[in-house]
Amino acid sequence: MLIVMHHHATDDQILAVKKTVEAMGLRAEPIPGSMRTAIGVLDNQGYVEDAAIRELAGVREVIHVSKPYKLVSRDFHPQPTIVDIAGVKIGDGEKTVMMAGPCSIETEEQMHAAAHQVKAAGGQILRGGAFKPRTGPHSFQGLGIDGLKFLSDAGRAVGLPVVTEVMRIEQLGPVCEHADMLQIGARNMQNFDLLKEVGKLDHPVLLKRGMSATIEEFLAAAEYILAEGNSRLVLCERGIRTFEKATRNTLDLSVVPLIRSMSHLPIIVDPSHATGKRSLVPVMARSALVAGAHGLMVEMHPEPEKALCDGAQSLDPGGFEKLMIELGRIEEFLTELDA
Amino acid sequence: MLIVMHHHATDDQILAVKKTVEAMGLRAEPIPGSMRTAIGVLDNQGYVEDAAIRELAGVREVIHVSKPYKLVSRDFHPQPTIVDIAGVKIGDGEKTVMMAGPCSIETEEQMHAAAHQVKAAGGQILRGGAFKPRTGPHSFQGLGIDGLKFLSDAGRAVGLPVVTEVMRIEQLGPVCEHADMLQIGARNMQNFDLLKEVGKLDHPVLLKRGMSATIEEFLAAAEYILAEGNSRLVLCERGIRTFEKATRNTLDLSVVPLIRSMSHLPIIVDPSHATGKRSLVPVMARSALVAGAHGLMVEMHPEPEKALCDGAQSLDPGGFEKLMIELGRIEEFLTELDA
Amino acid sequence: MLIVMHHHATDDQILAVKKTVEAMGLRAEPIPGSMRTAIGVLDNQGYVEDAAIRELAGVREVIHVSKPYKLVSRDFHPQPTIVDIAGVKIGDGEKTVMMAGPCSIETEEQMHAAAHQVKAAGGQILRGGAFKPRTGPHSFQGLGIDGLKFLSDAGRAVGLPVVTEVMRIEQLGPVCEHADMLQIGARNMQNFDLLKEVGKLDHPVLLKRGMSATIEEFLAAAEYILAEGNSRLVLCERGIRTFEKATRNTLDLSVVPLIRSMSHLPIIVDPSHATGKRSLVPVMARSALVAGAHGLMVEMHPEPEKALCDGAQSLDPGGFEKLMIELGRIEEFLTELDA
Amino acid sequence: MLIVMHHHATDDQILAVKKTVEAMGLRAEPIPGSMRTAIGVLDNQGYVEDAAIRELAGVREVIHVSKPYKLVSRDFHPQPTIVDIAGVKIGDGEKTVMMAGPCSIETEEQMHAAAHQVKAAGGQILRGGAFKPRTGPHSFQGLGIDGLKFLSDAGRAVGLPVVTEVMRIEQLGPVCEHADMLQIGARNMQNFDLLKEVGKLDHPVLLKRGMSATIEEFLAAAEYILAEGNSRLVLCERGIRTFEKATRNTLDLSVVPLIRSMSHLPIIVDPSHATGKRSLVPVMARSALVAGAHGLMVEMHPEPEKALCDGAQSLDPGGFEKLMIELGRIEEFLTELDA
Repeated sequence: MLIVMHHHATDDQILAVKKTVEAMGLRAEPIPGSMRTAIGVLDNQGYVEDAAIRELAGVREVIHVSKPYKLVSRDFHPQPTIVDIAGVKIGDGEKTVMMAGPCSIETEEQMHAAAHQVKAAGGQILRGGAFKPRTGPHSFQGLGIDGLKFLSDAGRAVGLPVVTEVMRIEQLGPVCEHADMLQIGARNMQNFDLLKEVGKLDHPVLLKRGMSATIEEFLAAAEYILAEGNSRLVLCERGIRTFEKATRNTLDLSVVPLIRSMSHLPIIVDPSHATGKRSLVPVMARSALVAGAHGLMVEMHPEPEKALCDGAQSLDPGGFEKLMIELGRIEEFLTELDA
Repeated sequence: MLIVMHHHATDDQILAVKKTVEAMGLRAEPIPGSMRTAIGVLDNQGYVEDAAIRELAGVREVIHVSKPYKLVSRDFHPQPTIVDIAGVKIGDGEKTVMMAGPCSIETEEQMHAAAHQVKAAGGQILRGGAFKPRTGPHSFQGLGIDGLKFLSDAGRAVGLPVVTEVMRIEQLGPVCEHADMLQIGARNMQNFDLLKEVGKLDHPVLLKRGMSATIEEFLAAAEYILAEGNSRLVLCERGIRTFEKATRNTLDLSVVPLIRSMSHLPIIVDPSHATGKRSLVPVMARSALVAGAHGLMVEMHPEPEKALCDGAQSLDPGGFEKLMIELGRIEEFLTELDA
Repeated sequence: MLIVMHHHATDDQILAVKKTVEAMGLRAEPIPGSMRTAIGVLDNQGYVEDAAIRELAGVREVIHVSKPYKLVSRDFHPQPTIVDIAGVKIGDGEKTVMMAGPCSIETEEQMHAAAHQVKAAGGQILRGGAFKPRTGPHSFQGLGIDGLKFLSDAGRAVGLPVVTEVMRIEQLGPVCEHADMLQIGARNMQNFDLLKEVGKLDHPVLLKRGMSATIEEFLAAAEYILAEGNSRLVLCERGIRTFEKATRNTLDLSVVPLIRSMSHLPIIVDPSHATGKRSLVPVMARSALVAGAHGLMVEMHPEPEKALCDGAQSLDPGGFEKLMIELGRIEEFLTELDA
Repeated sequence: MLIVMHHHATDDQILAVKKTVEAMGLRAEPIPGSMRTAIGVLDNQGYVEDAAIRELAGVREVIHVSKPYKLVSRDFHPQPTIVDIAGVKIGDGEKTVMMAGPCSIETEEQMHAAAHQVKAAGGQILRGGAFKPRTGPHSFQGLGIDGLKFLSDAGRAVGLPVVTEVMRIEQLGPVCEHADMLQIGARNMQNFDLLKEVGKLDHPVLLKRGMSATIEEFLAAAEYILAEGNSRLVLCERGIRTFEKATRNTLDLSVVPLIRSMSHLPIIVDPSHATGKRSLVPVMARSALVAGAHGLMVEMHPEPEKALCDGAQSLDPGGFEKLMIELGRIEEFLTELDA
C-alpha cells in the first residue's frame, strides 16, 4: 500500500500517518519527493483495510498494491489447473471444450433432440437451464426439478456430461444429483454465500463474470470458491455492460489472454449472451478461440423460433454443426501455428 | 411491440412476420412508410417474448413498448405507497427518514454507542450489517447471528427500529426475528430467489439498486417482491458503476424524481456507498433531499478510524449530528418552498 | 511514480528497473515488502512517461502519483478564481450565475423574446448556439454568423452578456467580436488545438466536461487553456455517458464538491443536457445549487414546442421564471444555513 | 417514428398528438392496443425532430426508427466500398491491410528505421503522428510539420503510402501534401467541422471511433464525410471506455461484423490503443482478423523502450515481424475456411 500525502502536508501529519500504520502492526517508510511525500506500507500479508488512514489529515490518496485474491493467482500457483468434468478435461493444453444446448429446458423431447444434436456435432457438454434468472417475474422461470431430470436423462442417453445454473443454496442438493457441473450466473457472481457453499462441494463449477465486474472482482469471486477448498473452477466471460446497446452486452475478449496470464484457472467464452444476436455468435466464437479461450458455451435450440427464452441468440442445429466444423479446423490450424 | 422491417424487405417477408405474430395469438398491423414498413403488434397483455420474430428474414429491429413490470408502476397504481417500519412512516407527504449506523456490527459497545448517537441526533432507524458482502473472502465477513442480537438490543434500548442486510434465504428466519426491516444489497438486486422469498413475507424491505442496473431492471426487481404479495417496499439509489473512479460509484440523483414519477414506491438515497468519501456525504445528502428523496441511509460510526469496514466513508458522531441539523432545516425550507 | 514488481521478480530485474529510472535522471528507491518489492520513483517535477519501464521484465504495474495538471490545482493555487464576464462575477463567494436561453439561435424575434424573458426572470447571461454540433449531418446546423448577430443584439438590448459555443479555430474571430464568453462543448473537450487557441485569448471561457471524460481528464483539458495564459475559465458538468438510458446522460453531481476541492476554478451545472427531459430540469437545478454549483446553464425557449433543437429539454418562459424564484429562495436559504 | 401514449392518455390528448404530427407535414396512424395507444408516424424521409411531440400531454415515449445516417448504410448501398490508398486497396475481398509505425514521429532516423522494418515485414501503410493529442499540455505534443516531412520521406524511401492524424482544419493543407491518408482520431470523431472539411477533399480518410461513441454515432460521424462528397473512408475500432481499467480501453470486436452488415465501408481494428499493453496486441490482432477486420493498425517502434509516447503498447521490430508472419498464415487459412 502506498499513501500519497498532499503537497502541503505538514511533518506532523506525515508522522501521524506513520504512527497509525505502525499501530496496525505494519511498517511505514516515508519516501520524500520533490513535490510531495509518499509513504510506503510494508510487511502486510495481503490486502490492508485503509479506513483508519484514508481520511487522516494531509492524506491525498491511498493506493493498494496487494490484490483481494491470492489462491487464484498465477503468481503463487504457476502451473495451470485442468478441470475434469466427468471425463471432459478443460484447461491449458487440452482440446477446446464446447458446452451447448438450449437456454432453458422446456420439454423432454426438446432436451433429447438437443442432446443428440450437440453430441452429433461434436459438443462435449450439454447445457440447459432449469432455474432461470429473468429480469421480470412475469417471464417464464424454468421447469425446476422436472427440468433437471430431462437434462440429466438427455445427457446420459447420449453420453454427455451436463451443466446447469444454480441460483440458490437449497437447490444445490438436487442440482448436484443431476448435473456434472454447476453454473453460477452473472447476476450471482457476487452472491457470496452461494459461492462459499459451492466452494465446500467437490463438484466442478462454472463461474460467469458479472455484468459490471472488473477482472479483479471476477478473480476475487473465484477466490471465494477456492478459499473453501474447491478448485475445480472454470471462469466464463459473457460480455459486460457498457453504453453500447447495439449488442446485448459488450464482449470483452481481451480478458481471455489477461486472465490466462493472471490466473491458473481455465477460461471460456459465451458469445450468445455477450452479443444477443444469432448472426454474431459464430464469428465471435471463432474470435474467442483465437484469443485463447479454453472452451465455449453456446446456445443451441432444436427450434430457436419456438424457444421460451433467448431464442434470438440461439443457433439452430444446422448452424451449430457448421460452427463446430469450423471450430475444429481453427483448432487444428492454431495447433500448427503455435508449433 | 413494434417490428421494423428492412428497407428492402419483400412482401412475402412482411407476410411471414404477420403470420408469426398471429400464431402467437396477437394482432399484427402493418404500417407502410415511405422508406420501410413497420408492423405494430397489438392485443398483448404485457411484455412479449420476441424470439420467434427477431431473427425472421427481413426484420431489422424489434422495439418493446410494454415494460417488464406493472405492479410497481404509477400508471396502474397512482396513489403513493407509504411504508410503515415499526411506526416510522416513509413515502410521499411523510417526514424524511434517516437510517444511520455503522457499516458493520463489530461489538455490543459499538452498537449501543451508535444507537444513542443516531437517536440523539434525530435519526429514525438504526442500521448495521451482521452479514457483509465483501469483494474478497479474506476481508471481515461480519459477526452473523451474534451481530443481529447486538443490533436489535441496541435499537430496543433507544427505541429505534433496525434494518439489516440479508444475503441468503436461510438467514430470513433469524433476521426477521431481530430486524424491523430487511435490506437486499446491490449485489443481490437480481438474486431473484431471494426477492421471491422476501416477497412472501410481511416484513418491510429496502431494495438497493444494483451497481449496473437500469431503472427498468431496478423496477422489475421490485416487481418480483410485489408479485409475491409484499408491497412494503422502499427503493434505494446507491450509485452506479461508470468509468469515473474519483468516487466509489457515480450517484445518479436524477433517478429520484424519475422513480417518483414512474412508481408509487418510496425512494431513498445512500450517499455513503455512492461516493465512498466521508467529505462528500453531507453535501450529497443535502442534494438528495432537494432532489426529492423520501429518506437517506448514511454510515455513521462511533469511531470511523477504527471501523472494520468502510470507515473512510463513515461520518463520525459530530459530523452526523451537524448533518441532521442541516437536513432538518432544509426539510423545513422545502416545505415552505412548496407551500 | 511507484513501480510494483512481480512476486517472483529477480534481483537482477529489480536492478534493471532501478538503472532505467536513473537513466531518466530520476531517483529509484526500492521498498522491499514481504510479498513483493515496489520501487518508488523520486525527484520528478511532474507526470513521468512510463513507456521505458512498464514492459520491463518483472514489472507488474506502474502507478502514477503525479497528475497531468498543476495550474488548475488548488494544491498550488489555494485562493479561488473569480471569473468576470462583462461585469458578471462567478466563483466562490459570488452570487449564483444563471446562463439561460435557447439551444439554438433561430430568428431575431426568438432571441429578443428569449433575452427579455431571461432578463425579466433575473438571469445574468444569455446563451444561444449559432454553430451547432449535431450527431448527424442532416439535422439543423445553426445559423452561423447571422445567428451571432441576433444573439449579441438581443443581449445588448436587455443588458446581458452573452455566451455561445465555438467549434473551430476560424470561428474565434467573429465569435469573440460578438460574444462575451466562449463555450467549448463536450464533444470538443479534447480538441486540444482549439483549447490552445482559446488559451491565447483574453476572453472568458466555459469548458464543458466531455461525455466520457474522467475528472482528471477534465482538469487536464482545463490545464491546456491555463497553460497558454488564459485563466478566465469556468468549468461545466453536463452529464456523463453511462449504461443508463432513461436520461440523456447521467448527471454526476458529486463532481461539483470534488472539483471545488481539487481546483480553484468555478464550476457550474447544465441540467438540461444532463437529463434531456424538461420535467427533470428544475429539480436537478435545485439539487446542483445545493451541491455547491457556482452557476447553472439552462435551456429556455420562448416556444419549446417549436424549437429546432432540443425542445424536449427546454423550459418555457413560465417554467423558467418559476425556477428562478425558487433558486433565489434556495440561495438565500443556503446563505443562512452556512452562516 | 412511434409515439407511445400513457396508459391513461385521453382521446383528446391522442388527437392533439395526431394534429401536431400532421402540422409537421407527416401522417399519424393511431394503433390502439389493449393497454395503451401508440401512434405511428409515416411519410418522413429520414430522422424527425421530436421536440414538438415528446413533451405533449399524455406522451410516454417517442421511439425513433429512422437512423441519423443513410449514405453510409448498406440498406441503400449494398455493394461494398473499396478504398484505394495510393495503390493499396482495402475493403471486402481485398487482402488485409496492415498500417504500422510509431505512435509519434521523433527523428528522421527513427522514421526511416520504422519504414524499413514495416516494409520488410510486409506492412502496406506506414503510420506516424506529427500532431499528437495528449491528455495534458505538459506531455510531448509532436514534431508538427517537420515530422510530416520525416514521415513522407521515410514512406517514399521504401515505397509505402503514409497515414497521419490531422487535428485542426489549418493542418489539412500540409498534411494532404505529405500524407496519402488522413486520420481523424477518436477525440475528434465528433469534431463536425473537421469532418465536413475532410469530406470536401479527395484524400482517403481513416475515422477512429470515439471513446464513448455508439455504433450509431460512429456511422453518423462517417455520414458527415460522405455527405460532403468524400466516400474514400475507412472506419477504425480502437476500444471504448468502460468501467474496466485492466486494459486501456475495452476492445469491442463485435462491432466488426456488425458494421460490416450495417455499412458498405471498410473497417479496421487498432489493438494497440484498445489494450494499451504490448503483450495483448498480437493476440487481439489475430482475433480481429478472424472477426472480419479489413485491416489493422498497430504501433511498432524501432526501440519501444525509448518511445516518447505509448511505448508500452508498441511492438518492437521482432515482435512485429512475428505477428506479420502469423497474420499471413491466418489470412491464408481464413481463405480456405470460407472456400
